[in-house]
Amino acid sequence: MTIPSKATRGNFFEDFETGQIIRHATPRTVSEGDLSLYIALTGDRRPLHCSAEVARALGYQRESLHDLLTFHMVFGKTVGDISLNAVANLGYADVRFLATVYPGDTLRAESEVLGKKETSAGTSGIVWVRTRGTNQHGNVVLSYVRWVMVNKRGTAPTGAKDTVELPKEVPAAELQLPAELRLERLPEVAWAFGARAVWDDYQIGERIDHADGMTIEEADHTTATRLYQNTARVHFDLHAMAGSRFGRRLMYGGHVISVASSLAYNGLEASLGILAWNGGQHVAPTFAGDTLYAWTEVLDKQPLAGRSDAGALRVRLVAAKNVDPVKEGVERRIKGEDGKEAYDPRVVLDLDHWIAMPRR
Amino acid sequence: MTIPSKATRGNFFEDFETGQIIRHATPRTVSEGDLSLYIALTGDRRPLHCSAEVARALGYQRESLHDLLTFHMVFGKTVGDISLNAVANLGYADVRFLATVYPGDTLRAESEVLGKKETSAGTSGIVWVRTRGTNQHGNVVLSYVRWVMVNKRGTAPTGAKDTVELPKEVPAAELQLPAELRLERLPEVAWAFGARAVWDDYQIGERIDHADGMTIEEADHTTATRLYQNTARVHFDLHAMAGSRFGRRLMYGGHVISVASSLAYNGLEASLGILAWNGGQHVAPTFAGDTLYAWTEVLDKQPLAGRSDAGALRVRLVAAKNVDPVKEGVERRIKGEDGKEAYDPRVVLDLDHWIAMPRR
Amino acid sequence: MTIPSKATRGNFFEDFETGQIIRHATPRTVSEGDLSLYIALTGDRRPLHCSAEVARALGYQRESLHDLLTFHMVFGKTVGDISLNAVANLGYADVRFLATVYPGDTLRAESEVLGKKETSAGTSGIVWVRTRGTNQHGNVVLSYVRWVMVNKRGTAPTGAKDTVELPKEVPAAELQLPAELRLERLPEVAWAFGARAVWDDYQIGERIDHADGMTIEEADHTTATRLYQNTARVHFDLHAMAGSRFGRRLMYGGHVISVASSLAYNGLEASLGILAWNGGQHVAPTFAGDTLYAWTEVLDKQPLAGRSDAGALRVRLVAAKNVDPVKEGVERRIKGEDGKEAYDPRVVLDLDHWIAMPRR
Repeated sequence: MTIPSKATRGNFFEDFETGQIIRHATPRTVSEGDLSLYIALTGDRRPLHCSAEVARALGYQRESLHDLLTFHMVFGKTVGDISLNAVANLGYADVRFLATVYPGDTLRAESEVLGKKETSAGTSGIVWVRTRGTNQHGNVVLSYVRWVMVNKRGTAPTGAKDTVELPKEVPAAELQLPAELRLERLPEVAWAFGARAVWDDYQIGERIDHADGMTIEEADHTTATRLYQNTARVHFDLHAMAGSRFGRRLMYGGHVISVASSLAYNGLEASLGILAWNGGQHVAPTFAGDTLYAWTEVLDKQPLAGRSDAGALRVRLVAAKNVDPVKEGVERRIKGEDGKEAYDPRVVLDLDHWIAMPRR
Repeated sequence: MTIPSKATRGNFFEDFETGQIIRHATPRTVSEGDLSLYIALTGDRRPLHCSAEVARALGYQRESLHDLLTFHMVFGKTVGDISLNAVANLGYADVRFLATVYPGDTLRAESEVLGKKETSAGTSGIVWVRTRGTNQHGNVVLSYVRWVMVNKRGTAPTGAKDTVELPKEVPAAELQLPAELRLERLPEVAWAFGARAVWDDYQIGERIDHADGMTIEEADHTTATRLYQNTARVHFDLHAMAGSRFGRRLMYGGHVISVASSLAYNGLEASLGILAWNGGQHVAPTFAGDTLYAWTEVLDKQPLAGRSDAGALRVRLVAAKNVDPVKEGVERRIKGEDGKEAYDPRVVLDLDHWIAMPRR
Repeated sequence: MTIPSKATRGNFFEDFETGQIIRHATPRTVSEGDLSLYIALTGDRRPLHCSAEVARALGYQRESLHDLLTFHMVFGKTVGDISLNAVANLGYADVRFLATVYPGDTLRAESEVLGKKETSAGTSGIVWVRTRGTNQHGNVVLSYVRWVMVNKRGTAPTGAKDTVELPKEVPAAELQLPAELRLERLPEVAWAFGARAVWDDYQIGERIDHADGMTIEEADHTTATRLYQNTARVHFDLHAMAGSRFGRRLMYGGHVISVASSLAYNGLEASLGILAWNGGQHVAPTFAGDTLYAWTEVLDKQPLAGRSDAGALRVRLVAAKNVDPVKEGVERRIKGEDGKEAYDPRVVLDLDHWIAMPRR
């Protein structure tokens, strides 16, 4: 096997240095085309992203990108530099959605290596990065920490042991809605949300089953993933994946989050957007042909600093595959025969995050 | 089975009241992205929808939405309120396309319950609604009546018996082209239509076989249906549909209409758009993997009030699946062994409608 | 079998006349939606097509169409007139990309019949056409010669024998970059290209394996082909193709070129675009489910007239299916058991073309 001279096969564990800043290629001017495709691929129905009139009534310039579309666009750019040789995506922390993105804005991404630690087996190591997505004005629109296990290129020990401690949550006191979002005229456009419940109506401990299911095809998830210019081989290359333990292509986990989030419109209609992720886990892989269902567990409720018109809900979005959680019953975690608690094997996503909701 | 508290499973027969007005959520600003996707999903080739130059030469502001794209966008919004619990979509009547829609316009939809009638079995009932789609100026762009059979929530008789009488057709005298459509400069851009025949050339009784066939994939029809934010479970949820009598997902009937209409470009190249539907029926279900063919039967020809430059053709658009109507021969209706006439089982669509054509 | 009266089944060999000019229907205003779809369908990552900021820094008005998107849009329009009855697409020559196309531009296509020659069997003949794509200002953006073998309608000999001699290459001296492309500010935006090599670094004879593979679904290639309003039956009609020697739909060769070109980003990141094709061949058919890989062979290097900032690379883009050229090894041509050299049967594309690259 010859390693190609000019084409890259991505960075290996040895290539990362703590403190290093990586400026990712391919800035992207997002457009009306991206908004339409996001709806076409996920079924999103939130009016701030599909109606210029509603968006303007609430202080926005026009219809805006879904926070997850922004996430995927930023994340996609980082894959070629960070995770082409990842063995596992271990998690996300301190994920903050900081500004509204509109069609016409240009997104860039940059990552800082926070730390790296070789595993005891010596064949790979964990790399922590802080990624920031910025717009053409230089404003940070998204910031998150991600850590991945990356293969080593060679066998020589690196001695790397810069473990990174991560916050377990984004504190409610630090959450903020975009300043331009004003709710004085919400009563005029409330019908557009189709909402029956607002922040005040949700109870800690409540579970909302989102009723609908969506089956995903290979063309759906690969089209979405290409749109985000995410080049992870596991999503695209059947010839290579046929020899993997899965025997087929894996669905991009971000598409699972987007589909689950779109299903979650039903029961969370008044959501004004995502404020932050505390942490997230792709519990099990998802494949084309799988049908996704979702439910939400309300974990916490907090006011938003400086705003009497909206509050924050901390919610756990759970997605399960090929089982209707209402009709057939699924709990997130179950006790196994050995008495130990573990994820129900049909659960594929567990995303602990904060969303914003209007208050009465 | 627990009924979720905040997520909706849609309205049941008992929930509708004659005279009730339902304002549907999720207004939608249509965009260039939607136009591109419509072409990518259907193969539409009509120049008024894909060329700003042709559109402007004929009085339009710019390239415009295909009438069927407008229809799907308006229709999609109504599904969550009207037909989530529909057992059957019984028909359309008095469907009028009333104004041109451009990228940048925002579409809303509102439905009025015209009547409801419980079936004799007592488990469901028919609901008639008039739906109106409007743009951001409050102009009605589309108006139609639809009736569906909807499941009851309970078993108590409702006594509902408000049957609605529907017009069998939209009278030719009431048809109108958008006033801004001017044909003085048509000779300049006639080449763009690729047309060899105009209104004068079509004969009542003539049948035009549209020659081409198109096979539809699951990803095609689900992407289209998501784009229209239509949430009918039968199109999306393989896990649920696996247990249905079909054993798989049904294609959205509107996608069948769009594909048939795109195939019908070949032979109706000069069409200026759809004026009205007199009535339509999805004769048989369509599934992914089916190949659609189409033909048109000319039912009537009428002048358009106040216009000497264009006329109306009443046409029946018929789609059949998995049979080439030219090579293998299909008639719309055939005589069975019992001597009774019925639809050929390969026919899937029968749409009686008016289109506009330039006159010599 | 009845030939439909108004619908067309395309031109046959007898219908073409040397010297004839065919103005193709369906001009197309390209849009942001088309750009997004092109990325979503191919995974293209070139910053001149996805970043308004990079494009403006280098003298462009805004993000621009990928040259291949322009090619497909122009080519698609010609299919209905030129190749509906083609038995074989024999080749391309003298393909020149002459101007930058932006969203909002309207593309038209026109073809001139350069010659026609009946085959000795008398059932078909070769037709040569020169196609020109122009924008709304009347500027030619693309010009190419294509020749196809087209079925005859009848059996009477036509005596046609106007063979056309074609240039084997587009001479380097005639290549030109768009005048508005200025590279003074390239250092500012070089990061956006993700490039490690420029014109100076490539060696004649060098081979660059592009590392990644992409599997194509039916929905992918048919969506792409519909977007280009290309109506060739072989791509769309499974019912008809089930009876062909392939037993299934063929992928549009242009989609293969686009996917290979997107894969070729990895190793040719600094490319500024395609200047010309010298010649191209679809060596073997491609089908849904195939995984495409690509490599590039550097054939020649030449300066660009009047420019010290950029040069031309003559490259051969080769695509192979269902084999990883790096891991498993593929050469373009191999010696058979009979001692004769022929294409490796896994090679599907051989495209000899010129691209532009910045110089140091």
